[in-house]
Formats: sequence, structure tokens, C-alpha cells
Amino acid sequence: MNKILVANRGEIALRIMRSAREMGIKTVAVYSEADRTMPFVLFADEAVCIGPAPSNQSYLLGEKIIAVAKEKNADAIHPGYGFLSENAKFAEQVTAAGITFIGPSASSIEVMGSKLAAKQAAQKFGVPMVPGTETPLRSLEEAKEVVKKTGFPILIKASAGGGGKGMRIVNEPSELEEQIRMAKSEALSAFGDDAVFIEKYVGSPKHIEIQILGDKHGNCVYLFERECSIQRRHQKLIEEAPSSCLTPAIRAAMGQCAVDVAKACNYYGAGTVEFLVDEALNFYFLEMNTRLQVEHPVTELITGLDLVKEQIKIARGEKLSFSQDDLKINGHAIELRICAEDPMNNFLPDTGKLETYIRPQGYGVRVDDGYEQGMDIPIFYDPMIAKLIAWGSNRDEARHRLIRAIEEYIVKGIKTTLPFGHWALQQPAFIEGNFDTNFISKFFTPQALQENNLKEEQVAAILAAYVWQQQNVPLQSTSEDQKTVSNWKKRNMLR
Amino acid sequence: MNKILVANRGEIALRIMRSAREMGIKTVAVYSEADRTMPFVLFADEAVCIGPAPSNQSYLLGEKIIAVAKEKNADAIHPGYGFLSENAKFAEQVTAAGITFIGPSASSIEVMGSKLAAKQAAQKFGVPMVPGTETPLRSLEEAKEVVKKTGFPILIKASAGGGGKGMRIVNEPSELEEQIRMAKSEALSAFGDDAVFIEKYVGSPKHIEIQILGDKHGNCVYLFERECSIQRRHQKLIEEAPSSCLTPAIRAAMGQCAVDVAKACNYYGAGTVEFLVDEALNFYFLEMNTRLQVEHPVTELITGLDLVKEQIKIARGEKLSFSQDDLKINGHAIELRICAEDPMNNFLPDTGKLETYIRPQGYGVRVDDGYEQGMDIPIFYDPMIAKLIAWGSNRDEARHRLIRAIEEYIVKGIKTTLPFGHWALQQPAFIEGNFDTNFISKFFTPQALQENNLKEEQVAAILAAYVWQQQNVPLQSTSEDQKTVSNWKKRNMLR
Repeated sequence: MNKILVANRGEIALRIMRSAREMGIKTVAVYSEADRTMPFVLFADEAVCIGPAPSNQSYLLGEKIIAVAKEKNADAIHPGYGFLSENAKFAEQVTAAGITFIGPSASSIEVMGSKLAAKQAAQKFGVPMVPGTETPLRSLEEAKEVVKKTGFPILIKASAGGGGKGMRIVNEPSELEEQIRMAKSEALSAFGDDAVFIEKYVGSPKHIEIQILGDKHGNCVYLFERECSIQRRHQKLIEEAPSSCLTPAIRAAMGQCAVDVAKACNYYGAGTVEFLVDEALNFYFLEMNTRLQVEHPVTELITGLDLVKEQIKIARGEKLSFSQDDLKINGHAIELRICAEDPMNNFLPDTGKLETYIRPQGYGVRVDDGYEQGMDIPIFYDPMIAKLIAWGSNRDEARHRLIRAIEEYIVKGIKTTLPFGHWALQQPAFIEGNFDTNFISKFFTPQALQENNLKEEQVAAILAAYVWQQQNVPLQSTSEDQKTVSNWKKRNMLR
Repeated sequence: MNKILVANRGEIALRIMRSAREMGIKTVAVYSEADRTMPFVLFADEAVCIGPAPSNQSYLLGEKIIAVAKEKNADAIHPGYGFLSENAKFAEQVTAAGITFIGPSASSIEVMGSKLAAKQAAQKFGVPMVPGTETPLRSLEEAKEVVKKTGFPILIKASAGGGGKGMRIVNEPSELEEQIRMAKSEALSAFGDDAVFIEKYVGSPKHIEIQILGDKHGNCVYLFERECSIQRRHQKLIEEAPSSCLTPAIRAAMGQCAVDVAKACNYYGAGTVEFLVDEALNFYFLEMNTRLQVEHPVTELITGLDLVKEQIKIARGEKLSFSQDDLKINGHAIELRICAEDPMNNFLPDTGKLETYIRPQGYGVRVDDGYEQGMDIPIFYDPMIAKLIAWGSNRDEARHRLIRAIEEYIVKGIKTTLPFGHWALQQPAFIEGNFDTNFISKFFTPQALQENNLKEEQVAAILAAYVWQQQNVPLQSTSEDQKTVSNWKKRNMLR
């Protein structure tokens, strides 16, 4: 493999290109008109503009991207995450064009892309599912039979549903009939289809996922778990590895299940099997993501593997160079997604220019990002600016290091999730590892953030030096130095 | 321990403060007038200017620094490296003032500060020394007796010597008498003292050192070795861990010797025992450095320990939380010192302003530095601007990652050792691990560097984006984009 076209943008494009360069492989960037000065474009050995800013006129144009790959003699395409990464048709077209798709086969993507097909495939291997019906509910009697197995509470879900519509929680037998009726009626009016299912209701679930790697020779291993329960709008904000709640036995059982799910669809490449985990540490298959995940760095930091390099080696047909027994968890890693969002205002996306942008440095701190100071955050794409990841020899060290790194990280001109992360990492529930997907709704308020900001004493040293120099603030006499420093710190706190 | 005064500057002061902050310990910076806008000053919780730029009017003023510590209620002082770090009197004064010195006892510093005393202490434990005389040579007959044990070549060294004066290499018996006479004569005229010693001449030595950690309860472990042979003017430029030439048995033997040396002076804290290693992998005690070393990060990256935190814990009286058996080498790390020096001109120090300063990012890359863009590199201190360290799962990955990181690192306005590092890491001798302290004199020429620069195809992507934005280069039409990118890359290569 001599040249890889990266069919993506931003931090993940840059991250992929770095690994390719370390392997001596050339890279081709494709970019939209909005992205022409982005670091990934300039990092690439070659770069081709493929269209206007909106994704459906650039990053989603599979055929155009394949044509560029051919023109540039790229022998492989890496799709990153999002965009075309889980598009089975694109994977097929790439392969048909004689180009290596750095990812699983089109058929693996297709099976895992359908929730029902995925569950059916996984079930053959006895992978635990949330108990309930697998086909539309036919009668109240059937519901009663199912509930005998699942117990209460249960969830009634619209077959055609999504976004919570046609979804009802039932806490006791007396409510069952009425709630089924209401769910069916809601489903009919929302989707024109009154088919509903029953599932056991997992009330305070943790979202824990297993990273797997499979080669084209039938070998498959799991790289342990990532705990991703801290979410807003069902999107992850803080991820860590390992999870602080799993026992070695449950970890091994989940790992084996994930490998079984992968084998169920003859999977090769990097993939992630997502599970719901309840308070009693029962785990249930949720879905499989057939690509690199945003949060893959925490797995890299605890295993020492470079997942992009592994993806490339697998795509080249190499065998995995390690077995399950070779893999050990080394320390702990926590990632904060730094998104252009206002945590004080319901995490609404913010736009604007990165007027000041200074990254933290030092031992155990990793920043994966795709912008530089002075750049605008385009409105067309995901609002994630950067991922800040801290490694520590144990969870507490990783946590303290991440807090320290957040304090060093300066973003001005745009609101971000940095203050949220600073607050979250200091909450008792987080410190104890005692949290689930309700963490934000349960604990977080804008007031809490405001109070945390006021308590912040140590902030923004490096910025101060920088801004100071840039603005040529006249230097005070020696005796004044401390006061000046302290004022700068206060100003910087209000980022 | 609530508050640490850091009696140092630049990258090491910032590095120490980061660890202190992660432990919840406040910090006090002391700084010279030249350093008032440095990141370490602004990172500290409190900062006090202690005098003019020259070290002997600021960073070397032990009593003044102790007075500041008292005034600020600091309960400990960390001396970093250089300056007062190996000054036994300072350690004693700190302790006498009721302040914890984060380092070994004054008596350990004193013993190891005298080369003769250090050798005598170490010899009791059978630590191997370069064979030769331990006292001034009294006669030709004595010389002949000694040479019977050492074999040729030997080195005749002036007792009062330094800087190579009064030093003669003797290759065969017939030269012995004449060379002793000449060495004595040279020594007399240079130092007013004609006393000379004999030592076996180690012609192509590797410089390999062992990091040790001892607590105040008699426990002492070694954290493996650092290979530091790539030097100019007897100062290290590239260091790595582990060394590619040691066998596990020799590593363990050297480690045990280092622990013995430490025990010989009742050592506690972090320390480094330096050895010369010859081509047959015989190793000889050189000296012990009773402080943190510049190159400590490579050891941190392969052990997962934070050496500054360990120093602080030891100073607080805690026991080591691990035994020798708990320590394992994880992967490989290589460090390049980025010094304000011109490798094209005999590594002469360069001065000026960091007009553009952009650090590399991503997996496995660590930058420890003390400056920000826009700052002047003061002429008063060590020319080291930064340390760039790459970790990899094996040596080859670490090497490729460091090369990639060097390509991303942009320093403009001042000449640095970055191009030297880029060249050195690609030399066959380095790739094979087949090099000694003669690496630079043997292989390096300015021409070699020039050729390497011309071969560089991939450079400076992130800078391009940055400079592009800053200078508002008008964006070309889509078809022109590639050419523009490529031109920027060429311009950036000439940093």
C-alpha cells in the first residue's frame, strides 16, 4: 500500500494521515471549499477540492471520491467515521474499482447496519439481548407472557419508531393494557404503523462498548471496553477506558460476546460492539459500529496499539501480530470531546472564530484536533473541535491530569464543552465511577457550572504569557509583578 | 505538603508545576527579570522576581530563594536540574530552614559530587570502574604494573584536569614513558600540578545511564536504562529508553550496580548512575547525578511513572508503592533536545525570537517546553528550548513517530537542532542501534544535513495553514489549490 486517500475531514483525517506517514504511506486529502486551509489538507501529500461545503456536495460524493482516488493512483481509501464510513454501497464501489477499502467488507457493514439483522446474527452466538419480543406484538396475552419473563418495568416501543415517539414505560401489570393501547395509537399517528414491541426497561443504563480487531484470516481479539455513559442528546461527551465498574470476569464475558458478534458477520478490521449495562452489571447487545470510533484514543492509550495502523495492516491482508493473551490493560485514559457548544445553554452549537487557541502540553496529555488558531468553525459539519485525552497510571491520576490539561487549554472566540468537562470530572458521582447515561440530566445545571468557574483558582497560565506578549502590556516594576499575573489569571478564567 | 517553591526556570519548572498541580499542591515560581513573561511564571500560583537575568544574581541565590519560600509559606523546594540542584550546601540550608528539600540528603549530594569519593563509595559494593590508578602515578614502574592489568590503549589524565588538557592516549608500551612525560609537562603548565593518573582507554563508548528511585525507608529500585550516546560537546542531544544494545542480563546487572551505588551513599529520591559501556558490553561506573535529569521523560514513558510525583512522594516520607518486580518496560521512547543552536555551524548557540512556534500533536508525542511563540530566547541560560519525545510500541515505531513529529514541529526565527534530529534518526547507524559517543564526529557534516533537507518532501503542514491565515494569502481557484499547497510546503522546508 503506497498511497491512501482519506475520505474525511478535520481531526480524524489528520489523525489517519499521521499514522500513514509514520508507516511511510503517502496520503491524499479530499476537501470541500469550506475546508481548504484546514491542517489535514495541508498535511496531506496531495489534496483535491471535491465541491462546496455541504456534505452532500462534497464528503458524501462517493463516486467522485473514488474517481479522485483513481486519478491520484491511491491504492486504498480510509473513510474515517461518519460520512461514508458505514455506507455498504460505497465500500462495495471502492472494492469494485480495485481500491482497498480500509474497513470491513460491504456485507459486514450491511448486516450490522440493520438493527434487526444484527440482532439475529448475534443471537445465533447467544449474545445477550435486552429481553422482550422480536416481532410485533400480536395480543395482550402475548404481552403478558413476555412480561412474565422480563419483569417490570418494561418499555413499549414503536416498530417504526425513533426519537422517543410511540415509546411508553410500564411499571406495573395494571397499566399494561392501557399503555399498549396508547403506544399503538401514538405509533399510528406518528408513523402510520401501529406495530409495537416490548423490551425490558433498563432504567439507569451504562453505555459500555468493546473495541474489537479482526483480520482477514479469521483471528479476532477484543481490546477491552470503553465506558461512554456521559452523554447529552445520546451523544458521548466523556469516555474512558477501562470502565471503573466492570469486574475482570464481566470484562472477559463482554469481550467474548463482542468477538462472537464480529464472527457472526465474518468481520475484519476495527469495530465496536456497544452494550447497555444495568445496575446489576447485566449487559445487553445494543449495536455494532463498523468503523473507527471517535473515542478510539482511550483504547490506544491503555493498550499501546495504534488502531489506524492496525486497520491499515489488516486491510493489507496481514495477520494480527498479537493474540488475546498478549493484550493487557496499562493504566487508565479519559477523553473529553471539545465541541463548539454552549453548556450554559443546553449544549446548543456555537459558531465563530478560534480567536485564541492554545493546547495543553506535558506528560500523559494528547490532543487530537483539526483546527488552528485564527480559523472559523464551519457550520456545515460536526461541532467537535478537538479531543483531549489524558493517560494516567490509574484512574485518579488520569482524572487529575485531564483536569490540569483542561485548565491549560485556552479557547477564545467560541463556547466549548471545556468548562463542562472541568466540572464533570470533579463530581462525586464521576470520582466514584457511580454514574449512568442520566449523569447530565441528573446532576448538571448551568448554575453548577457557574459555581465551578468561580471556584477555579488556577487557570490559563500559558495564555497569559501569550496574550501578554501579543498585546505588549507594559511590564510593571518587580513589586507589581504578582498582582499583574493574578489579574491576568482572573481575566483568563472568564474564557 | 501544601506548597512547593520551584527553584528553576523554563521547561523543567513548568514540568514540575504540572505534576504538583495534578497532586493538588500549590506552586511558587521564582524568576529573573529576563523571565517574567515565561509560561512557568504564569502557570505558578504565586511568583516572585528574585533579581536580574544573570544566574548568579537570581537563580543561584540560595539564601534569597529560601527567604522567598519562608515568606510564601512554601513547605518544600524543588531544585529541578542545574542551578542549585546539586549544591549540598543549599540542600543543607533548605533543610535547616525547616523546609523539605525535594532531592537527596546533603551528604549524598556531597559524596557523589566528588568523583574520587563517589568511586570510593561505589567500590565497596564491587561496582565496576574503568581500570587504572586511583592515586597520582608515582613512577614509570607503577605505570607498567597498572598497564599489565588494563592492557592498551590507556589514557593518561591530569589529576587537576578538565577539558582534555593533560590527557594523552597511549597505544603501545614503547610510547608509555614519553607520553607520561608529556602529560605531566602539559598538566604542569596548564594547572600548575603535574600529578597524572592512568585509566584504561574506552575508545568507542556508549553512554548508558540507569535511573534509580530510593525512598527514606531503605527501598531502592532501578527504572531501567537510558541510552544517551548521541552527544555534541559531551552534551546529550538524543536519548532513548531502553537501549537497543543491552541484553536483559546486562540490564539487570547494571541496574543492580546502580542500586548499589545509591546504597553506598544512603541515597533517597530520584538519581541517575551513569556508565560507560564498551563494545563488548563491559560497563564502568562514571558518576552519579543526584537530581532529575533532562532526559527523564523517556523513562517515564516506558514505565508509566511520573518521576516528579515520585520525588514529591519520597520527600513526603512515603514508601515506594512498587517493587523491582512490578516494573516492566513498556514499548520504547526517544527524545530529541531542541536547542537554539545551528547544526550547520558546529552547533553554535543561536539567539533571537521564536517568530513562529508550532508544536506537533497526536498519539505518542510529548513536548516539554518553556516558551511560547513570540518570545525571545534569552542569552543568559541553557539554549534548550524544548524536548520532543515520542513513544512507540517498539523502537521502530517510536523512531518513525519522532521523525513525523519533527516534520510537524515549526520553529522560525531561530536555528535549532530539529533538522539534525531529522537527519540523525534516519542514519543506518541509528536505525541499527550501532552507535557510540562518536556518532556526531563520525557521521555528521553540514553537507549531510543539507542533502537531508533537500530530500524532505513532507513538511510543515500545520504551519502552512497557520501562516496562510495570518498573511491572508488570497485563495486560488480550485484547480490552483494543489500548486499553492505544494509551494507553501517548499517554503516551510527552509525553516
